[in-house]
Amino acid sequence: MNGARAVARTLLDAGVEVCFANPGTSELHFVAALDDEPAMRAVPCLFEGVATGAADGYGRMTGRPAATLLHLGPGLGNGLANLHNARRATTPLVNLVGDHATFHKQYDAPLESDIDALARTVSGWVRRCTDASTAATDTAEAVAAAISAPGQVATVILPADVSWSGGARPAPPVPPRPPATVPDTTVGAVAEALRSGEPTAILLGGVATREPSLRAVGRIAAATGARLLCETFPARLERGAGLPAVERLGYLAEGAMAQLDGVRHLVLAGARAPVSFFAHPGLPSLLVPDGCQVHVLATTADDIPGALGQLADMVAPHDRPVLPAAARPVPPTGALTAETAAAAIGALLPEGAIVVDEANTSGLWLPGATAGGPRHDWLTLTGGAIGQGLPLAAGAAIACPNRPVLCLEADGSAMYTISALWTHAREGLDITTVVFANRSYAILNMEFQRLGAPAGGPARRDLLDLSRPGLDFTAIARGMGVPASRATTAEDLTTQLAKALAEPGPHLIEAVVPALF
Amino acid sequence: MNGARAVARTLLDAGVEVCFANPGTSELHFVAALDDEPAMRAVPCLFEGVATGAADGYGRMTGRPAATLLHLGPGLGNGLANLHNARRATTPLVNLVGDHATFHKQYDAPLESDIDALARTVSGWVRRCTDASTAATDTAEAVAAAISAPGQVATVILPADVSWSGGARPAPPVPPRPPATVPDTTVGAVAEALRSGEPTAILLGGVATREPSLRAVGRIAAATGARLLCETFPARLERGAGLPAVERLGYLAEGAMAQLDGVRHLVLAGARAPVSFFAHPGLPSLLVPDGCQVHVLATTADDIPGALGQLADMVAPHDRPVLPAAARPVPPTGALTAETAAAAIGALLPEGAIVVDEANTSGLWLPGATAGGPRHDWLTLTGGAIGQGLPLAAGAAIACPNRPVLCLEADGSAMYTISALWTHAREGLDITTVVFANRSYAILNMEFQRLGAPAGGPARRDLLDLSRPGLDFTAIARGMGVPASRATTAEDLTTQLAKALAEPGPHLIEAVVPALF
Repeated sequence: MNGARAVARTLLDAGVEVCFANPGTSELHFVAALDDEPAMRAVPCLFEGVATGAADGYGRMTGRPAATLLHLGPGLGNGLANLHNARRATTPLVNLVGDHATFHKQYDAPLESDIDALARTVSGWVRRCTDASTAATDTAEAVAAAISAPGQVATVILPADVSWSGGARPAPPVPPRPPATVPDTTVGAVAEALRSGEPTAILLGGVATREPSLRAVGRIAAATGARLLCETFPARLERGAGLPAVERLGYLAEGAMAQLDGVRHLVLAGARAPVSFFAHPGLPSLLVPDGCQVHVLATTADDIPGALGQLADMVAPHDRPVLPAAARPVPPTGALTAETAAAAIGALLPEGAIVVDEANTSGLWLPGATAGGPRHDWLTLTGGAIGQGLPLAAGAAIACPNRPVLCLEADGSAMYTISALWTHAREGLDITTVVFANRSYAILNMEFQRLGAPAGGPARRDLLDLSRPGLDFTAIARGMGVPASRATTAEDLTTQLAKALAEPGPHLIEAVVPALF
Repeated sequence: MNGARAVARTLLDAGVEVCFANPGTSELHFVAALDDEPAMRAVPCLFEGVATGAADGYGRMTGRPAATLLHLGPGLGNGLANLHNARRATTPLVNLVGDHATFHKQYDAPLESDIDALARTVSGWVRRCTDASTAATDTAEAVAAAISAPGQVATVILPADVSWSGGARPAPPVPPRPPATVPDTTVGAVAEALRSGEPTAILLGGVATREPSLRAVGRIAAATGARLLCETFPARLERGAGLPAVERLGYLAEGAMAQLDGVRHLVLAGARAPVSFFAHPGLPSLLVPDGCQVHVLATTADDIPGALGQLADMVAPHDRPVLPAAARPVPPTGALTAETAAAAIGALLPEGAIVVDEANTSGLWLPGATAGGPRHDWLTLTGGAIGQGLPLAAGAAIACPNRPVLCLEADGSAMYTISALWTHAREGLDITTVVFANRSYAILNMEFQRLGAPAGGPARRDLLDLSRPGLDFTAIARGMGVPASRATTAEDLTTQLAKALAEPGPHLIEAVVPALF
């Protein structure tokens, strides 16, 4: 068999069953190989950022990598922003990046570029295949790298002649590196801090925001009064009925500093010491309060649930987590605002929903409105590279075909990868997208206000305003095959959301809301 | 003044008058600086690939750089594909990429990434500003690098604190490196080859495809019988009434080999020795025929018009170029196909049009249908990174507000940067976009046929087909504020094209054509 076929077979044998693809000429032999491997689901994406974002969503929900199929340097370039988010999410993901034939590279043909350099900026592991006979081994090692704790982006660069040359055969799966066990002494030291009686907070990141760890920290909090926080942008936060509530660290330094004020012990479980998202004149970058001792219980590469379970057994052997009361907002009426929109969403949030949150400023009330709702997962913008939501929703829906996906999108962010809607339609994915149409890059207006800057001149008005012309997301969505409607009142949104959630397949609702800033 | 203001003022003083922008928080001080520098036109783009492609179009048409304003690594990443095209086009262009404050980088905040590595893959010149007091000098040097012969992408990385810190002042323009004079001996050697009587071809690239060089090579061809070819994908080919005809080298190796068959002397003027766009099993990469001597008259860094003029004076002192007869296709009737669409476009091509050609397989008949038309410029996909057309058209229209822009787009390619339509609407640009809707990545089907591959299984059908659901470009365009219509017959297209060209501002026509492959 040729190299492409051996790579495809090796991926399947290692558990990689979905390929989010945007191929070009140099990837054709791999496409042909997929014809012979129908167990691999090939999902067409009209832009590489859709493919990479979808693979991130899939990996976050399954813990297994999807493959992407990308076309040389420019294809990888188009996928970088969402690979950046995947890197920050420690998502297992395998990129297959086609390249010119090995003998062709010396001629610097028009599509030649430094793929390796691009790949290294987002990948924990990069390998350039050199021969059909070793491509499958390269691929098996890539999958092992991708799923080694805590998970990472692994990139295989696959020259066209490696794909088309014969003499290849599949390689068996390579065992991944498991999470490291946290030493007892480390757990013991943290237990001592928790028993000190001094104000303590536990900051959760990585898999610490999933159920097993949340149950453990819930017990710890019940026993010790420790405050439970998680990273500002968790990859996947499990929430709702039956789970202890966790507060996300604030996006703005001022907010995070207020949350951490007075804390004397900060226990890190899969999170790093908190830093400001952006620097700000006159504010610190590192947000650990003065006099606060930082305790690293576990990094993302460690066995976090194991360490937290052990810690809970030490400090809270007989305690049960305090669980938030089940409560949904009343369906709102009247004007549609970010606040009433959040209430409508909270009122209707389906059991088992996967919520993809790229609502940015318009999402301010969403966590509160959904905290007492049924059990759900909350996926956030881990790396800050906007344009993540619609693709991430596609990948999550393919990962979990029996769960409803609710994609909450800011209008500005939605436009970066808007063609993901076509993939929603093509694959018939059960995704309800709510676009918060505030006709503005409102977060930048907020930052200007925060700087105490004056009201703004022509450039600022031109660059932050999305109202001239207004984007009609219902027309755009219908143009890509997604049924769409527009909500201008709270009642509209409730009605349209209920209808969209009740019907299978993709829907989009443009929720017209005023900008907060 | 602060660093941002000094940078903005320096750009203006150096002749950079347009900034295609997609800013974020780290670029806010630069946005505020633009408020105080109203001479700089700030053009909002909803995606960075629109900003970089527009800057490419602007640079190709003016010879002067536009600036882009991009947000850290992910913003630059989103802009890379069209920067790759700009690099291949040797377009002068200045990227301003915001970054975290210098003191903030050590904390590896979520948006931290290796901007420098990304920038180097597409830039001939990269500088990271370290201090407000030197940022203006960095910027002046960036502009000089961008406009030094032959033109290149220059990238300035601008940390937020460099922007916001005071103590800066503008820097005066820095003289660029001029084109190098080609030695007389080189010109003489080429003259001797042209006089040999053996079959000779001149392959044009860079500015050799512009009027002064074309007039010179037209004379040379008239005197010596040399064949005139240009690169497969010229950055800007001047064509039509009054200019000698130049044949583009074929995209497929087979075609280019046929064009070069029998040539004994190949003279390179701003072009490199021809290579296949992609390698293909059993075909050579280097397309110079056996026994053909290659003569490098001038590289892109040389004074190409000077060398060609001198050469013409030597071998054709009294000759005039042979000019193609003025001829337009008859307005077509009946079925709308790639061929009749080309005829409609040829029949109506306006005087002075700027044609942006990303029609791919559907564009097969366009060069023939427009060769005898009025004078126009033809801009092509220099680097092969699709998603160039709509952004390039925006930049060309801003560069040349009194010239009509005709953007000829393949449907698959259009979707990569579709949000450029909003910038067309926002800026009221006189761009008529024709989307060739063949509902397929037809070029990949062509490549499969070329490989003699069998008809294709499920993956190939799924990944190359754009018809399930069909993209409604009229809805998508209207959703972004661009008036749109659909043509399903040749008469439709002629009528709609005439109307769109007669009205100012942007229009889009979805031309429904069968796929050729």
